Amino acid sequence: MNLLYFLDLVGTAAFAASGAWAAVRNRMDLFGVLVLGLVTATGGGTLRDLLLGDTPPFCLKDENYLYISFGVALAVFFLHPWLKALAHPLLYFDAVGLGTFVVIGTGKALSFHMGFLGAVMMGVMTATAGGMVRDVLSNQVPLILRREIYASACLAGAALLVLLDKTPLPQPLAALAAALVVIALRLLAIRYNWALPRARG
Amino acid sequence: MNLLYFLDLVGTAAFAASGAWAAVRNRMDLFGVLVLGLVTATGGGTLRDLLLGDTPPFCLKDENYLYISFGVALAVFFLHPWLKALAHPLLYFDAVGLGTFVVIGTGKALSFHMGFLGAVMMGVMTATAGGMVRDVLSNQVPLILRREIYASACLAGAALLVLLDKTPLPQPLAALAAALVVIALRLLAIRYNWALPRARG
Amino acid sequence: MNLLYFLDLVGTAAFAASGAWAAVRNRMDLFGVLVLGLVTATGGGTLRDLLLGDTPPFCLKDENYLYISFGVALAVFFLHPWLKALAHPLLYFDAVGLGTFVVIGTGKALSFHMGFLGAVMMGVMTATAGGMVRDVLSNQVPLILRREIYASACLAGAALLVLLDKTPLPQPLAALAAALVVIALRLLAIRYNWALPRARG
Repeated sequence: MNLLYFLDLVGTAAFAASGAWAAVRNRMDLFGVLVLGLVTATGGGTLRDLLLGDTPPFCLKDENYLYISFGVALAVFFLHPWLKALAHPLLYFDAVGLGTFVVIGTGKALSFHMGFLGAVMMGVMTATAGGMVRDVLSNQVPLILRREIYASACLAGAALLVLLDKTPLPQPLAALAAALVVIALRLLAIRYNWALPRARG
Repeated sequence: MNLLYFLDLVGTAAFAASGAWAAVRNRMDLFGVLVLGLVTATGGGTLRDLLLGDTPPFCLKDENYLYISFGVALAVFFLHPWLKALAHPLLYFDAVGLGTFVVIGTGKALSFHMGFLGAVMMGVMTATAGGMVRDVLSNQVPLILRREIYASACLAGAALLVLLDKTPLPQPLAALAAALVVIALRLLAIRYNWALPRARG
Repeated sequence: MNLLYFLDLVGTAAFAASGAWAAVRNRMDLFGVLVLGLVTATGGGTLRDLLLGDTPPFCLKDENYLYISFGVALAVFFLHPWLKALAHPLLYFDAVGLGTFVVIGTGKALSFHMGFLGAVMMGVMTATAGGMVRDVLSNQVPLILRREIYASACLAGAALLVLLDKTPLPQPLAALAAALVVIALRLLAIRYNWALPRARG
């Protein structure tokens, strides 16, 4: 599935850019920009692989993920004043990455025979844990825990993929449908500013 | 040992409630409440299993732990104004969970042939690491690092179990004795407001 | 390689002291001092071993690391008013530990057949991740992400070792050279107050 691999690298680049940008905003030095770019892009998938016992994790088996993460982080570090115009387009690449990460994470959990809830959880985690580590290293409560940005879209896509896995639908089609659901929900959430409810005060 | 499994689920529910409550207090959204409930209840045992190389961790092998964590977190999210009366009883269930987690963690480390200090450490970690991750995600210094709440009771129980493991005492009896020590010390600490010393200023 | 093992224990003690000191400064209790001493000294190597799939991690296979970490942390807790005179010498032991951790981490990653970037990253991570966890548990942005203290020296040593690994130079000599580079750069950075650049504002 070469398309999925390509989209995965696109998502990796978009997530690395968001991590590096957060480091620049927080006045970190070059090392901080590299670390935040890396953990944002690869943290979720790495945690998934550790939990599945599939070590070394994906990004150490295929160093393209490392080269892209560090390359993008370096570019953001040196060029960020000129890259501001890319902030809006970045949201679209980020949504593509989100859908891809959910599908890859859920699919891998299913192939390791996780149950329904475990597979959904690992799909959501693959797409969201890197951003949580980024926020913890920036000494902030992870944004995703406070304000809906990603979670519902990931949940819907991961649950759909687990359900489609029980049907005779070919896996590539199921993956495509699930990824499109995540991407569409994410873009709609940006467009209409959707948010999850909080508990009553 | 069905009693131990039952107590483990009780402890899981109590820990999930404490995590979800912290999320509600910190004005997190529904996703944050689910995540904090889950990591508080299963984080310690998951870290233990990762360190022992026993993957996937317990909560992915037996999804009951996930269903209980998410179920309790959902209940806290929707019903927390009516659940305040349960805050005090929760402390007792929490103490039961503490004793159970220490015994399960220490016992598992012993069965994986860890040494004295390693086994004690893993027992304490099983019971305390989830709460530390909860506090880190809430952007706070973990409460347990600042003010005695759990640590001494866990340490005493874990060390007792490691020592009893060298004696001919049957394992279920040793586990019961260690769990009771943790629970009793914990309840006494609540009752008499015990605290560990801090370093002199 | 007995010298390397000895230097590793020296570094473990120095890192444990830095973690325990941070806990004392942050007014943590005895348990906090023990936890911060342990994670600072063993966190980087433990994360490396988890990623390589070599479980249980080094410090659970050889409990000397645990005894040294807890012993040093206890000493700092009880004796810290009298240990202040040791703060400056500690920097030298810390530099020795840094060089040793980088060399051990990079070498282990190479023996597990990691690629160039993966091996460098694991060397740097072995020496720096424990300090990052210490800072996260102290509710601070990790110092190393904001202000150069370690990162460049570790990077240079790890990259040198990976390059020398392709040459016929005997491994112990390569390790020695890489460790000396890290230690020399670190001491020069302290002496001349070097810092990495930040992104322009």
